[in-house]
Amino acid sequence: MERVYVKDLSSKKDGEEVLLKGWVHKIYNLGHISFVRLRDKTGIVQLVLTHEETCKLRLEMCIEAEGAKVSNTKAINGVEIQVTSLKVIGKAYYDELPFEINKKNIDASLESQLDHRAVSLRNMRIRDIFKIQEEIQYAFRGYLKERNFTEIHTPKIIASGTEGGSEMFTVDYFDHRAFLAQSPQFYKQMMVGAGFERVFEIGHAYRAELHNTYRHLNEYVSMDLEMAFIKNEEDIMELEEGFIRYLFKHLNKTCSRILGEYDSKLNEDVKIPRIKIKDAQDIILKEYGKRSPIGNLDNEGEKLIAKYVKEKYDSDFVFLTKYTRSKRPMYTMPDDEDNETTRSFDLIYKGLEITTGGQRIHDYEELVENIKRFNMKTEEFEFYTKNFKYGMPPHGGLAIGLERLTMKILNLDNIREASLLPRDMKRITP
Amino acid sequence: MERVYVKDLSSKKDGEEVLLKGWVHKIYNLGHISFVRLRDKTGIVQLVLTHEETCKLRLEMCIEAEGAKVSNTKAINGVEIQVTSLKVIGKAYYDELPFEINKKNIDASLESQLDHRAVSLRNMRIRDIFKIQEEIQYAFRGYLKERNFTEIHTPKIIASGTEGGSEMFTVDYFDHRAFLAQSPQFYKQMMVGAGFERVFEIGHAYRAELHNTYRHLNEYVSMDLEMAFIKNEEDIMELEEGFIRYLFKHLNKTCSRILGEYDSKLNEDVKIPRIKIKDAQDIILKEYGKRSPIGNLDNEGEKLIAKYVKEKYDSDFVFLTKYTRSKRPMYTMPDDEDNETTRSFDLIYKGLEITTGGQRIHDYEELVENIKRFNMKTEEFEFYTKNFKYGMPPHGGLAIGLERLTMKILNLDNIREASLLPRDMKRITP
Repeated sequence: MERVYVKDLSSKKDGEEVLLKGWVHKIYNLGHISFVRLRDKTGIVQLVLTHEETCKLRLEMCIEAEGAKVSNTKAINGVEIQVTSLKVIGKAYYDELPFEINKKNIDASLESQLDHRAVSLRNMRIRDIFKIQEEIQYAFRGYLKERNFTEIHTPKIIASGTEGGSEMFTVDYFDHRAFLAQSPQFYKQMMVGAGFERVFEIGHAYRAELHNTYRHLNEYVSMDLEMAFIKNEEDIMELEEGFIRYLFKHLNKTCSRILGEYDSKLNEDVKIPRIKIKDAQDIILKEYGKRSPIGNLDNEGEKLIAKYVKEKYDSDFVFLTKYTRSKRPMYTMPDDEDNETTRSFDLIYKGLEITTGGQRIHDYEELVENIKRFNMKTEEFEFYTKNFKYGMPPHGGLAIGLERLTMKILNLDNIREASLLPRDMKRITP
Repeated sequence: MERVYVKDLSSKKDGEEVLLKGWVHKIYNLGHISFVRLRDKTGIVQLVLTHEETCKLRLEMCIEAEGAKVSNTKAINGVEIQVTSLKVIGKAYYDELPFEINKKNIDASLESQLDHRAVSLRNMRIRDIFKIQEEIQYAFRGYLKERNFTEIHTPKIIASGTEGGSEMFTVDYFDHRAFLAQSPQFYKQMMVGAGFERVFEIGHAYRAELHNTYRHLNEYVSMDLEMAFIKNEEDIMELEEGFIRYLFKHLNKTCSRILGEYDSKLNEDVKIPRIKIKDAQDIILKEYGKRSPIGNLDNEGEKLIAKYVKEKYDSDFVFLTKYTRSKRPMYTMPDDEDNETTRSFDLIYKGLEITTGGQRIHDYEELVENIKRFNMKTEEFEFYTKNFKYGMPPHGGLAIGLERLTMKILNLDNIREASLLPRDMKRITP
């Protein structure tokens, strides 16, 4: 008999024999009769078993159960299975479970949940986070493919970094010292120039930052894109705004149950205000008496400008624009108007930066000049700059932190909840 | 005016004004009149320009050209653009191009092409390789999503390796010595047990192997999958056979031009013979007088068994099955029948191994026993084995090397051709 998923039981007739496979989610022993709940990838269903059979079972064992589907208004989804044949196919060896899985919320610290990740993920509410994450990527791909973007993979083992080697993990690469890439920045630009014009990559990025906060991971998934023949950074912001609209529509369609469980309402009518970083600093000084670091907002500032924008424009998002040159990487396009600021932006979502983007310098001489201006060694970037000698189109792009976006969509407290197996300063296991 | 792609010119009326953006592909100067070919992501089109305008141009500059689309039977695709306005938007600074791009094939060594990757990729035939590669991944995702698989990302920075630490790159991870993952093996198994049941990952894998051959990369893209509730390894082979059929159908539909250019004919009627490794050894000994290493085929052996299968079954593929226990990793499920062999397989495509797969041990005690049998330290694998205490379903999976599959589909000579920016023993740039 072919196995049926719990979610597909509704298509079976009353009395029909079915074969289910999954884990023992809950055991109710009432003496003469027992109920067991079976959990699979798609849901939970009640099994009716004899006392003898139930005694063989422990929570979380893997089982196969055959029996007739019958209606029972008291059971979950009004269905139960009168089991005629039961088999244990995955034994349990634990003394006790690290925590209870079969409640709505797991009552254990995040650290403990992450230590036992393959157990905590058995809780459907926890696993749901990664359904959202999967669908975010699905939407990102779909949106970009419709717009002629090509998906690429670029190396994570690199010879020198985008920012000149700070905050990078080092790798012993045969006889060389190499690094783990902080971002695919240089490579996606190269691929734009190589004729792909529009590229995107969903891949790991590595930051050896000495931060241990609720919003930093040392290994994270970056959704990067880069596109040629733009007018300026406004084109990139428009593309991202369109993506957010597309994403919210997609999530409302495919994940409404999960969004409901996490109290997340995604308004598809996204219109993102754009505020110059200088003006944003003035606003939070005037409105909240908060001073900002030179040319940027700190974490508290990001939260305050989000609060302001929420109240004034009813928007969860805000683009901060026109960062000063000294605060942006050497490849950032300076703004014509004043030569002090750049054609750059960040996207703040519910008070957290989820994107950095902008237009890049595409002229070879201008790029080399700018590297000098940053007191960096032009020789070290020759593998990158030499590509600009052969005709580079005006271009720009952005990167979205996948875990940050997931975290904010679901109103999670800690970014580690949005990573299957997070890596931070203190954690490289499991 | 909105920019139009070369591929979409056919939808424009004769005489209609269009705006094109791209690179200067070729320049023909006939004195009184000049032809320039513009190349964009999608194709090549002829521009008609005055002599003065043409003199400003160099090969590979980025340009914008406005003008009327007119018919000319002598031009490519029967179309040319009578340019009325021309602008250089990406200057050229080279002394000479490293090689000619605008011929069908680039006349330069592979090393030179890789040194100037952002130049060699401007040749459409080279860039086409990555269109195939993109569509392979698209098909892999589509095929698995239809079958209830979940896409995951697992860490590449790990504390210990699947094979016990040999052939891994080391990373300085804060105060620890860490490694780059050779495969997501342990993690995909964990995620199966965590309730996802069916998972896949398309991500980088790292091998510090001291091989410098036409078929090895030290950083490559692995298409991994793992699934629960299987009967045995036959289920996994069937899934892969189905994928190959699905893939070939998809490529024939989406990439027929490219397949034609590379002389690749993909027969959708895929039926893959399955031969036990012992029998394969006997066959190539008997047929070709070739002896094999214990329990395996060497590279020449793989080619000979492929030749045999091609002649006997007219198949480009062959599954080699039932490898001996000592030749497979400790997590491989032993075969019931003899306890000497395993429920494992390789897939050989046109003489090259592109997949390793099989059923895994899912019982905790059996797994720990097997680790001991391999004389490995059980403590070192506790972060992995402890997940097997909580009910693991029977499961198995496989990994497909993306670059190898691309290479063989397009009949390429060297795997580096199928990597945008390959990493090998001697190359970590560009």
